[in-house]
Amino acid sequence: MAKPTPLSGFPEFLPAQRFVEQQVIATLAHTFELHGFANLETRAVEPMDQLLAKGETSKEVYVLKRLQDTGDGDAGGPGFGLHFDLTVPFARYVMENAGRLEFPFRRYQIQKVWRGERPQAGRFREFTQADIDIVGRDSLGFHHDVEVARVMAEALGRLAFLPGFRIQVNNRKLIQGFYAGLGAADPLKVMQLVDKLDKMPAEKVGELLVSDAGLDEKQAELTLALAQIATTDTSFVDAVRALGVEHPLLDEGLAELAAVIEGCAPITSDHIRVVADLSIARGLDYYTGTVFETRLDGFESLGSICSGGRYDSLASDGRSTYPGVGISFGVSRTLVPLLSDGVVTASRSVPSAVLIALTDEESRPAADATAQQLRAHGVATEVAPKADKFGKQIKYAEKRGIPYVWFATADGDQVKDIRSGDQVAADAATWQPPVEDLRPTVVSSDN
Amino acid sequence: MAKPTPLSGFPEFLPAQRFVEQQVIATLAHTFELHGFANLETRAVEPMDQLLAKGETSKEVYVLKRLQDTGDGDAGGPGFGLHFDLTVPFARYVMENAGRLEFPFRRYQIQKVWRGERPQAGRFREFTQADIDIVGRDSLGFHHDVEVARVMAEALGRLAFLPGFRIQVNNRKLIQGFYAGLGAADPLKVMQLVDKLDKMPAEKVGELLVSDAGLDEKQAELTLALAQIATTDTSFVDAVRALGVEHPLLDEGLAELAAVIEGCAPITSDHIRVVADLSIARGLDYYTGTVFETRLDGFESLGSICSGGRYDSLASDGRSTYPGVGISFGVSRTLVPLLSDGVVTASRSVPSAVLIALTDEESRPAADATAQQLRAHGVATEVAPKADKFGKQIKYAEKRGIPYVWFATADGDQVKDIRSGDQVAADAATWQPPVEDLRPTVVSSDN
Repeated sequence: MAKPTPLSGFPEFLPAQRFVEQQVIATLAHTFELHGFANLETRAVEPMDQLLAKGETSKEVYVLKRLQDTGDGDAGGPGFGLHFDLTVPFARYVMENAGRLEFPFRRYQIQKVWRGERPQAGRFREFTQADIDIVGRDSLGFHHDVEVARVMAEALGRLAFLPGFRIQVNNRKLIQGFYAGLGAADPLKVMQLVDKLDKMPAEKVGELLVSDAGLDEKQAELTLALAQIATTDTSFVDAVRALGVEHPLLDEGLAELAAVIEGCAPITSDHIRVVADLSIARGLDYYTGTVFETRLDGFESLGSICSGGRYDSLASDGRSTYPGVGISFGVSRTLVPLLSDGVVTASRSVPSAVLIALTDEESRPAADATAQQLRAHGVATEVAPKADKFGKQIKYAEKRGIPYVWFATADGDQVKDIRSGDQVAADAATWQPPVEDLRPTVVSSDN
Repeated sequence: MAKPTPLSGFPEFLPAQRFVEQQVIATLAHTFELHGFANLETRAVEPMDQLLAKGETSKEVYVLKRLQDTGDGDAGGPGFGLHFDLTVPFARYVMENAGRLEFPFRRYQIQKVWRGERPQAGRFREFTQADIDIVGRDSLGFHHDVEVARVMAEALGRLAFLPGFRIQVNNRKLIQGFYAGLGAADPLKVMQLVDKLDKMPAEKVGELLVSDAGLDEKQAELTLALAQIATTDTSFVDAVRALGVEHPLLDEGLAELAAVIEGCAPITSDHIRVVADLSIARGLDYYTGTVFETRLDGFESLGSICSGGRYDSLASDGRSTYPGVGISFGVSRTLVPLLSDGVVTASRSVPSAVLIALTDEESRPAADATAQQLRAHGVATEVAPKADKFGKQIKYAEKRGIPYVWFATADGDQVKDIRSGDQVAADAATWQPPVEDLRPTVVSSDN
């Protein structure tokens, strides 16, 4: 086999990098479970008509064909494609299993998704998402919007080894109510133009608001003033009021957004900030209230790495509708650049904390028994592959980052910390490394 | 949306069933890591020429096509397909990253694989495998065969909530040496026929050994006698010797198989037996020494649910070859029938151990604060979605299997075990449920 080359858009990790991803996923999962979210996995494929149901025919989907397909229509109907997000499969799962689920239903789902894109630098064709959603049957209390924000903020807050996060929250009722109060004839068009603020200067957006959305100068000015409000507390309410626009939907949106900001206050820290940012609109999506985006400190060019919001109808079967609120963290989107740039890595490339050195091949059964004693109380251990000279065995440990080498000596067992060179007597039945050496740890290059 | 129906061959679980699968995967991963195996994930796709490289052109592969493919050849070459096992991608990964890996390299990989099969009852088109392999560069000590057997036996042994396992070990050198010692002209043909013993009566196989493999009656008789030897200890060596066949390769195979059986002896129990079974051949595969199959007690009709062996060359790049030994556990193959039949399930459908009852909607912030206190020391907790009558809130907990409901009363906080009805005073900062209630547990229907 000639040496294979990586496939653009299909990131893979070396073992130490994968350890960092595992730690991120385990931390997220642990937090979600503490809040009562059950884990789900859905199949990788959905019927093509479901994948294209939202009218987004430009969606880049990978279609599956059986190599051995003899054209006898085994798939039936429109065929299958790989899911491009975790929302479409979750909506289908809820509909399929509604009779066997208890609502409100909290679930988290951490899986790969695929986009059938043309290969381009920086575009993923396979990537991992971590989603939480709470779904009700026919109704779902607003307080669940506060809940998902708190849960995701807590989860990201625990990823202390990553750069800091800024969760930006807004509310579609707030902005739509504001545009309605202004007297905008086409509030949707206004929202689309405001959504361009991160790509276009405010002045240019202001001109478009007049030329394309039919606002007058004063309305355009107020629209831009609204989008410039961003506060870490509920002072945004007064700032909006000061613009003098009034509408019942605006009042509702202000109260909801204030509740999210207040509800998250106990969770926030320097590492995880939650801000009311009135420029966030989430484009044309199906959100109807709270909306979320998230920026990673120092990596703002990645765009939003954690987004979501409230939707009035995840799905509907004619008898019931399923409103929900959810947020999706881009695991690959966040980690691939950090791992590629070496911003974070793991302290070693193997789980092993200890290497048992071998005096000769005959002592392997004794070395295996020592290793089992260490494993029995949770110390990951491997036995040297060969009875090489001890220097070579220590080198074996060093190359993998294994911190301890264990020797059976005439004076009994001894363990050497190969970083310091300290060697002490030890009993395999009870010996423990310091807790920070027990498992690999995530190491940030900036501290 | 009309109610969707399941897709044949793409199993999905309800939350309680998924919990069982999570427990199985976590137990396997924990054991593999204790033995120094690092986790890897490879991308879902491989180039078609790699997927079909082994000449198995009948392999059922799902080919991927971009929906928007404009025929401009963006994929280049032969296109991609979904991997049908974890060995082909691992071999490619080792070749691609050989310069950045340390050998011998131990990895475990737990991922979904796909087979582009025609839909048929009992045939999976998407399923999860858990593989461990140890790969060397140019050479790999035989003792690693013993190691992978021990590691997988220990991992399966920890799945105490599943039916028992019988790992069957054989050695290709042993059987090939035996056939050579017999003077069989076509040892491979003999092996293929012996491999039919689980589908065909011994008498019929004996006739085929004469008619198709050119053995005489005596040779056929000895071949069948060899295949009938199965022992839980190393007494198989004497049983083989008693057949009077001699060959150096047979001696080597006997010694290796005896070493695997002896090495596993400290791990075995009623729940996990390791037997030398001289009928196991693993068909036409690329194995060259030790081979493994595994049967699940009471579910023998599933066939082997955990298989593998020693291969002389996982891959080769002209300069180096990469010999290895590995074993692959069929997670879905084992769990889907057990979960469908209700042989195992989880004690509840949510992670939550506690539901905080709500007196009124105004007390939600206080309830949230209590929940955070419980979560801070690891107790998964949710807050009631509505301030319904307490009876209705208790019913909410009951439906999900949440064992405890927490009340803020005039006399301070109290917690009720809703199974016994016992209600006692409690402090959210310190209260812990009994350890068996902290997380959902796997429940077997037969005990």
